[in-house]
Amino acid sequence: MTKLAYRLSDIASRFGGHVLGNSEVMICQIATLESANSSQIAFLANNKYRAQLESTHAGAIIVGAADSDVTTLPRIVCDNPYAYFAKLSSFLNPPIKACAGIHTSVVIGKNVVIAEGVQVDANVVIGDGAKIGPNSIVMAGCHIGAGVEIGENSLLYSGVVVYHNCILGNNLIAHSGVVIGADGFGLAMEEGRWLKIPQIGRVVIGNDVEIGANTTIDRGALNDTVIEDDVKLDNQIQIAHNVRIGAHTAIAGCVGIAGSTTIGRYCRIGGSAGILGHLQIADYVEISSFTLVGKSIKEKGSYCGIYPFSTTQAWRKNAAQVRHLDELADRIKLLEQQIESLKK
Amino acid sequence: MTKLAYRLSDIASRFGGHVLGNSEVMICQIATLESANSSQIAFLANNKYRAQLESTHAGAIIVGAADSDVTTLPRIVCDNPYAYFAKLSSFLNPPIKACAGIHTSVVIGKNVVIAEGVQVDANVVIGDGAKIGPNSIVMAGCHIGAGVEIGENSLLYSGVVVYHNCILGNNLIAHSGVVIGADGFGLAMEEGRWLKIPQIGRVVIGNDVEIGANTTIDRGALNDTVIEDDVKLDNQIQIAHNVRIGAHTAIAGCVGIAGSTTIGRYCRIGGSAGILGHLQIADYVEISSFTLVGKSIKEKGSYCGIYPFSTTQAWRKNAAQVRHLDELADRIKLLEQQIESLKK
Amino acid sequence: MTKLAYRLSDIASRFGGHVLGNSEVMICQIATLESANSSQIAFLANNKYRAQLESTHAGAIIVGAADSDVTTLPRIVCDNPYAYFAKLSSFLNPPIKACAGIHTSVVIGKNVVIAEGVQVDANVVIGDGAKIGPNSIVMAGCHIGAGVEIGENSLLYSGVVVYHNCILGNNLIAHSGVVIGADGFGLAMEEGRWLKIPQIGRVVIGNDVEIGANTTIDRGALNDTVIEDDVKLDNQIQIAHNVRIGAHTAIAGCVGIAGSTTIGRYCRIGGSAGILGHLQIADYVEISSFTLVGKSIKEKGSYCGIYPFSTTQAWRKNAAQVRHLDELADRIKLLEQQIESLKK
Repeated sequence: MTKLAYRLSDIASRFGGHVLGNSEVMICQIATLESANSSQIAFLANNKYRAQLESTHAGAIIVGAADSDVTTLPRIVCDNPYAYFAKLSSFLNPPIKACAGIHTSVVIGKNVVIAEGVQVDANVVIGDGAKIGPNSIVMAGCHIGAGVEIGENSLLYSGVVVYHNCILGNNLIAHSGVVIGADGFGLAMEEGRWLKIPQIGRVVIGNDVEIGANTTIDRGALNDTVIEDDVKLDNQIQIAHNVRIGAHTAIAGCVGIAGSTTIGRYCRIGGSAGILGHLQIADYVEISSFTLVGKSIKEKGSYCGIYPFSTTQAWRKNAAQVRHLDELADRIKLLEQQIESLKK
Repeated sequence: MTKLAYRLSDIASRFGGHVLGNSEVMICQIATLESANSSQIAFLANNKYRAQLESTHAGAIIVGAADSDVTTLPRIVCDNPYAYFAKLSSFLNPPIKACAGIHTSVVIGKNVVIAEGVQVDANVVIGDGAKIGPNSIVMAGCHIGAGVEIGENSLLYSGVVVYHNCILGNNLIAHSGVVIGADGFGLAMEEGRWLKIPQIGRVVIGNDVEIGANTTIDRGALNDTVIEDDVKLDNQIQIAHNVRIGAHTAIAGCVGIAGSTTIGRYCRIGGSAGILGHLQIADYVEISSFTLVGKSIKEKGSYCGIYPFSTTQAWRKNAAQVRHLDELADRIKLLEQQIESLKK
Repeated sequence: MTKLAYRLSDIASRFGGHVLGNSEVMICQIATLESANSSQIAFLANNKYRAQLESTHAGAIIVGAADSDVTTLPRIVCDNPYAYFAKLSSFLNPPIKACAGIHTSVVIGKNVVIAEGVQVDANVVIGDGAKIGPNSIVMAGCHIGAGVEIGENSLLYSGVVVYHNCILGNNLIAHSGVVIGADGFGLAMEEGRWLKIPQIGRVVIGNDVEIGANTTIDRGALNDTVIEDDVKLDNQIQIAHNVRIGAHTAIAGCVGIAGSTTIGRYCRIGGSAGILGHLQIADYVEISSFTLVGKSIKEKGSYCGIYPFSTTQAWRKNAAQVRHLDELADRIKLLEQQIESLKK
């Protein structure tokens, strides 16, 4: 693939920011400070990488206003270098576009509506009454259940499964192995045996959502499971039945969210965290990786519950005391009382 | 889909319980207290939702004996409202039934035995010598390895993979992305390189088991991995080689169980918990979410090991002391000795 | 399958070690001490199983030099019984070999190069320009993206997805549900909305790697995600963009590794552990199950951070104090000062 090159000044005209240094330098790709060559532009958005400025071979750099003088290389100075990088990279590396057409191997049910411009690849199976919106792409081997609706401009990578009646918005990206709408874990015990509770709700997904590989989102038991607009889910996340995730929330890999929990807008949840069921999490809550949230969170802010790691040897000694904390607290209390007596 | 409606008195005749209030009300669906309309029946099984009784528009309510007077709405009074709800919902929303037939795209090996009434959907691949029992459903894109046996009335959703020689019982439900019988993680180190240990056992699954989306159950190294009757597994669970899970045990999402561990009957394991390898867990053990079990559990009961979460600010202060617990304990001991001396 | 039988003395000639007891015994399979019969050989590699030596019906045993006298059964004495077992089992249970041929249902793009001896099963889809090396096996329903390169003797089980341009080495084993090369989780926030950062790197996998079922390895954001030679990954592991995993490292199930982290050679990481992003982990580091590593580790050794489990009753009492550790430490300090005063 030969890449088109763009003059640095033209990039700034298109995306904003002002140029310092040689504005004629030609740029055809984004790269890291460490690996960039003279036809590539790098960016400084994390102080960790500041030292690499001295040795970089980049043709130009994207920097924030406070860093306008950190290099003499040609540079674009802007407010948010990371967002600038995102936009410029999307321009230089545009998302794939649907190549309209339905592969001959595709199996299509009755009353399916496939809009104009849709691309459906080999071995896709589409159930009765499903609808796929304009310019969407359904890659090889996806299974779209009966009655499913997919919006426009959506992209389902190979092997995505969507169970019956789920609703997917516009501009969705669902990566391979994603399962949307499998039964929630609903069971009742009677006379020593489990009874299955039919899961008759759906999954309803808003616009501009991305779902990482092998993430699962269960259908609701009675009402729907809801993923609002612009929610971003990493890989291997498990979202149980009747969860609602507020708009613009981002969740890192391997997180598990139990049934009927509601998560607010603009939350950020770290990798392998967990949230128990039937809880309410406010807007703008940040939860650290590896933290289990066992109660509702009513105030925005940052929350954490990680056991600090150490050498196994040190851990053994300290962890042994965790099992005696209550007793240690009692002993401290007793000491305090004894000191008081002695003072008198 | 038009739903049939049933008189409340007829529901009680069929499923037990006694009716209070208008027994002529017609019911066609189950719903939550919050969303039910006048042709729907709701239930009260969790005190959290009691306040919703006042505002519900449900046509009738399922309540326990102790709650027979909490509402004046038409109601069915029974011993176990949650189980009653499960049974009634299964009646109103019956599970899908096999629509006998094998899609023309299905690829079938030699000596495969497919019983009467079996439904095999598009793009399924079935290996040599496999057997599928009466009235089972194998949805699109499943891969059934050579020598696999599937019982009757089982349901494999789209994209399930079953490796060679595994044995699956009756009434199995396996959701999309389930992988049964992949190799266990068996390695020996020699001269700085890993040697693979062939995994020659199978996975053997009893009757009435449900397996959630993207859950993986590895085949045994030498003997079999065994899932007993009525075990219920949620999504994204990892079950390593040679694990045995006792009948009626239920495991929530994202749990990992390491190799050769045996779990008893009627256990309940919370989400994202873990159990190390080569352990024995007794019957009727409950393990909390996010808890790692590192030793065998011989007594039934409830076990937990969660680091309590807090604001990140508070966590920082407290977690810093976790690394000094052993030293704190020593200091308390010294204080106690000093107090004793002072007292004398 | 009738198994060939081998004389114990012939086994020792082929794999080393010396025979004690009847060297004429005929062996056709490996088994555990507990389940072996007289035509099977068992092994003693874990002291936990020593008691089973007395009741075993095995025809012969593999033991270490220190254990040469623990049984009077025919036995092979060797340096590393577990590695011996691995090699003998691989001989008795050889890995499957490619049965050259491409199923008629396979969909192949332009300029694809499939080497001699390759087996491609039903419903595989191969993108433009992909290359598959000699004697590799691609099982049913795999999706190989455009420009992917797969080395020789590699084995992709049913349903593996490899995104465009990823590079896979020789002797790879990838189990079902593996997703290689999905987009990393790269986002920038601007004006209250997420911008997607194109993920233009690849995944590059060395030789002799095994990847467990449903494990996901994301492609790099700008540079590549790299898995070096002889790395062994269990099931349901999540490896984020731009991670590098050093040769011979083994990672157990359900581990999550965040973006841009580098892990050394010969590391061992326990199940459900996590490693935050942008960290460096030295060679020969062992990380316990359920441990979150939040800082770089510069020294080889064993590291741990597990909250110890107990009965829920005991946990409640002790965990309540975790939230007061900082205050407890202050109170101890105060007590020490008071004692000092009193002493004076």
